[in-house]
Amino acid sequence: MSGYVRSLAERARDASLVMAALDGDSRRRLIERMAQLLEHHAAALIAANSEDLERGRAAGLGAAMLDRLKLDEARIAAMATGLREVAAQTDPLGQVTRREVRPNGVVIERQRVPLGLIAMIYEARPNVTADAAALCLKAGNAVLLRGGSEARASNAAIAACLHQALREQGLPDAAVSLVADPAREHVLELLQLSDLIDLAIPRGGESLIRFVAEHARVPVIKHYKGVCHLYVDRAADPAKALDLLIDGKASRPGVCNALETLLVHRDIAATFLPMALARLAQRGVEVRGCERTRVLSADVKPVTDADYAAEYLDLILAARVVDSLDEALAHIARYGSDHTEVIASEDAAAAEAFVRGTRSSAVMVNASSRFNDGGQLGLGAEIGISTTRLHAYGPMGVESLTIERFVVRGEGQVRHAESHMRD
Amino acid sequence: MSGYVRSLAERARDASLVMAALDGDSRRRLIERMAQLLEHHAAALIAANSEDLERGRAAGLGAAMLDRLKLDEARIAAMATGLREVAAQTDPLGQVTRREVRPNGVVIERQRVPLGLIAMIYEARPNVTADAAALCLKAGNAVLLRGGSEARASNAAIAACLHQALREQGLPDAAVSLVADPAREHVLELLQLSDLIDLAIPRGGESLIRFVAEHARVPVIKHYKGVCHLYVDRAADPAKALDLLIDGKASRPGVCNALETLLVHRDIAATFLPMALARLAQRGVEVRGCERTRVLSADVKPVTDADYAAEYLDLILAARVVDSLDEALAHIARYGSDHTEVIASEDAAAAEAFVRGTRSSAVMVNASSRFNDGGQLGLGAEIGISTTRLHAYGPMGVESLTIERFVVRGEGQVRHAESHMRD
Repeated sequence: MSGYVRSLAERARDASLVMAALDGDSRRRLIERMAQLLEHHAAALIAANSEDLERGRAAGLGAAMLDRLKLDEARIAAMATGLREVAAQTDPLGQVTRREVRPNGVVIERQRVPLGLIAMIYEARPNVTADAAALCLKAGNAVLLRGGSEARASNAAIAACLHQALREQGLPDAAVSLVADPAREHVLELLQLSDLIDLAIPRGGESLIRFVAEHARVPVIKHYKGVCHLYVDRAADPAKALDLLIDGKASRPGVCNALETLLVHRDIAATFLPMALARLAQRGVEVRGCERTRVLSADVKPVTDADYAAEYLDLILAARVVDSLDEALAHIARYGSDHTEVIASEDAAAAEAFVRGTRSSAVMVNASSRFNDGGQLGLGAEIGISTTRLHAYGPMGVESLTIERFVVRGEGQVRHAESHMRD
Repeated sequence: MSGYVRSLAERARDASLVMAALDGDSRRRLIERMAQLLEHHAAALIAANSEDLERGRAAGLGAAMLDRLKLDEARIAAMATGLREVAAQTDPLGQVTRREVRPNGVVIERQRVPLGLIAMIYEARPNVTADAAALCLKAGNAVLLRGGSEARASNAAIAACLHQALREQGLPDAAVSLVADPAREHVLELLQLSDLIDLAIPRGGESLIRFVAEHARVPVIKHYKGVCHLYVDRAADPAKALDLLIDGKASRPGVCNALETLLVHRDIAATFLPMALARLAQRGVEVRGCERTRVLSADVKPVTDADYAAEYLDLILAARVVDSLDEALAHIARYGSDHTEVIASEDAAAAEAFVRGTRSSAVMVNASSRFNDGGQLGLGAEIGISTTRLHAYGPMGVESLTIERFVVRGEGQVRHAESHMRD
């Protein structure tokens, strides 16, 4: 280990104490100023971004990757708007979430405090640099950012704007620390710093998430793949089910809350699937189905176990006819990724059984999988969608970047009694 | 890896789905029956425990360790009472914690669900076997228990009672799975099972916690040491401060919420410290102090950095005179363990500065450190006191063994809009 990341993290940890002590108004103004500076320096950002784009083209990056990497006036404006929305959110800190007066007169309060130092490990999209920083700062944290090497010039230019805003308000640059050298060994070093980093959030492809999960000594909340299912119950309204299917699969196939697998109850398969296959074909969706699906259309390719486990992020759909709701639940338990599941059914009992029977972060009853998103669920901006069943499960907004602790106020009360003993 | 723990964990994971689907009444009755069976089989428990005690004596365990290991009628009755209290708690599951109707008419609910499979790794005290199982089951989880080898006969006898209760209600034994073979390699295997275990809670001495933190691939919430501080402010009421000091240090020195270090503002040192040192001497507390403390009493031994970082769990106290509240906060930031800090002060501004300036799981204003305990803070029984700033911070009750997820109910609403894109 070079110690390069440790020294960065030590300064960031010190800065986290400064941020934690800052009042909500100052945090709001700070983030508003960051938005303003991103707009003022749009030309510089675009210039830096074009370096990244050229290097990317030279390196033969695909069109989708280059599109994610690209910054233009519109995207910079959108980034600034996102920051202003974060700035405008209610201050999550200091809120007393619960209050109780005990028989002995001591007053117990639960109070939100920042997590401390949060490390974001992400890939190509430069706007994550601004989004993640704003969310972490809004909640009184410092942040250590390690973006993808493809975006290093763009990330440095964005960080320069954020640092200017910090300096203008007499705050330490280190509150937003960028791991400038993208070498993987630095990620490895970062993941060992359990004495400095309170939480690491990896956001990106499967290989990145696996690398982090494999090597992390620091607490990690995974933002993992979305193998999202739509189960069309025997009691489904076919028209609604069709809308949920097309919105979930075809409105934006490249996102984690897009549908990947369609499960259809056998009693409705003959009426629903032909319509569904026709609509999917119109939208250019390739369907890979079980035998009972394939008899309904010659265009349906055979499905494999790998298809059922796949996050296509593309216009491809796995399809299976099931004998019962329980078989659908068993399929989801086996192949799902705890992300988002949808049931289309007019049968309230079936819907509740589906909700009870799935452990995913979001369960939708007659609503699109695409609603599993911080903005759509009313959280505002999100730093990711947790598929870790700890601390936060589903979209993580500002509040997820805080923790509740206890504040006890008394007038000298003591205990003189038995108490919890450490083993 | 022998695969022994994986096969245990696979059965426990399956059992966790059964427990998650169980209604609250059945979970309550299950735990009540467990309490009853522990009382019925008291003789068998005591017999098994005497095996452990003999082995322990032969192995030369110290008196304190043997006392922790010991089970008698009274302790078994206390264990049963603890289980009945857990059973009687409000069901944490299914609660809708928040509800919002979105402009598009979809209803967003947050709902508590179990974590899934929880692994407890603990040491000598056999009652943890019953306590931890009851708390995990109350929250609809399954639990994998790995107790200390010293208590293996007692743990097996307790587990037999819990299994009888599960079988009587047609539930799988595996909902409470005991790692019978205490070999450390099995703990190592357990800590790798990130596909099966949702949370591991190590509870015990520093070496156990370090071992777990070092090797875990599964999410871990640490129940770490308590280096708890009392800061006696210049504006303290000396009588109250004295009570807080004696209760915190001497009422039960072997517990994690006992005081280990006393910090005194210089302006009150001359009046407070002589009284304090006299009372501490009466209670047989050895004091290791800074130079400004030692001038006040010949009995005060010199203090070292190691003393400031030590969790004595004994009648020993480190003492230091500080020039300001800020110096006290800096001391706590440097030597503290994020567990419990206390300020004695009649100055509200100083108290708030102290609360804001500490990041520990519990901050006490004119109240004893000994109140950092699930029962004292109104949570009921606790599975531990988290010093991890994620998910739960401070005492962890039943609610800490659940997670909120999203349930979205609509009438076929779809999105056709931009959404969160995975990087």
